[in-house]
Amino acid sequence: MTKNEDTAFAANNRNRVRRGLKRASYDKNLVYGIIDSHFLCHVGFEVAGQPYVIPTSHWREGNKLYWHGSSKSMMIRHLAKGNPATVAITQLDGLVLARSAFSTSVNYRSVVAYGRPRLVEDDDAFNYHMERFFEMLAPGRWSELRPMTETERKATGLLEMEIEDASAKVRADPPGDSDEADFPVWAGVVPISMGQHTPEAAPEGEAAPLKHGLLNAYNLPLR
Amino acid sequence: MTKNEDTAFAANNRNRVRRGLKRASYDKNLVYGIIDSHFLCHVGFEVAGQPYVIPTSHWREGNKLYWHGSSKSMMIRHLAKGNPATVAITQLDGLVLARSAFSTSVNYRSVVAYGRPRLVEDDDAFNYHMERFFEMLAPGRWSELRPMTETERKATGLLEMEIEDASAKVRADPPGDSDEADFPVWAGVVPISMGQHTPEAAPEGEAAPLKHGLLNAYNLPLR
Repeated sequence: MTKNEDTAFAANNRNRVRRGLKRASYDKNLVYGIIDSHFLCHVGFEVAGQPYVIPTSHWREGNKLYWHGSSKSMMIRHLAKGNPATVAITQLDGLVLARSAFSTSVNYRSVVAYGRPRLVEDDDAFNYHMERFFEMLAPGRWSELRPMTETERKATGLLEMEIEDASAKVRADPPGDSDEADFPVWAGVVPISMGQHTPEAAPEGEAAPLKHGLLNAYNLPLR
Repeated sequence: MTKNEDTAFAANNRNRVRRGLKRASYDKNLVYGIIDSHFLCHVGFEVAGQPYVIPTSHWREGNKLYWHGSSKSMMIRHLAKGNPATVAITQLDGLVLARSAFSTSVNYRSVVAYGRPRLVEDDDAFNYHMERFFEMLAPGRWSELRPMTETERKATGLLEMEIEDASAKVRADPPGDSDEADFPVWAGVVPISMGQHTPEAAPEGEAAPLKHGLLNAYNLPLR
């Protein structure tokens, strides 16, 4: 294995970025960082020629992506059989207003990852990965929760997908048409970001105070 | 056509929501409202059994979705041939922390829409729909822009997709396990929202002041 194969996904017919090449990267650390920056992903798969796209929450360990759902859901059942999945993670960072429609763009960080998921069936592995997910959302919370019942465990399908290949695209620039700077229209970037707000306790009241930080792993400033 | 068919998409084998039924809706106004609430979508399609998911910007008129891209891109070329597309729009509204892992959830508004796009080839229609997109992003801006050149027009593929069917899912509730309210762990919702920040002029300086509002069509408060 060459150094490059250690640190970057090989580009192939599936993950090679064909448009906007200067935005593209196969660097694993960049890909992993974007994956870890959000817990919302969109999972694509196809059944009998019909494409499906399902939003869900994901997390990562090493070169593997994880997401879960109802074990009875079409997505989990279909992908547990080893069918191919495509997982997209997208962060929207700004609207880029250029002097022309053609140069108008958005700033973003996105990853598309490809693989064939499998079902995590071992209970210890299931618990380990679910705890890691909660460590991203609310560190320390997993051990405070009412433990999972056997019925709940059976109703939950956890998928693990080794990332076979992936690509990232990133745009983080001002308008690309500075050569048209004299054209008399304002040009620039409108930054966009996501944030969190003060937690709202359940209406039935607080049985215990909120002890842990929330969403620490994501860049979600308190508004 | 019955009243219901006027106001709701018929549920079929493709768009019927099978899990979380109480979150599901086929109401057209709800579907359209969620589509219009964001300009980021994820487009799914498949080529020779391989699913693809591409993030892009969309807009809507009536029962039709629009998005554009490089006319040479795999997505535009593939979908211009009449192949099926699935478009997902997802708004993340909060992290729902329940007393159990099983009841932990997110608040969200999401739509998945199905159809077979076609390329908009007529120039008047192309300009009309592009102007409508800009009216969502920056009202009044289209007519201020440096006009599109013929080369740029040829390089831009605009797709139009009649929504054949769609479904919405919405969760906007506190934790669902109020029957376990005595369990001694904090439970509630961490609201999440997206916002915009003060526009940043291009570094080469302002050739004209910013005259129009920005992103007025979306709920993106200024932070």
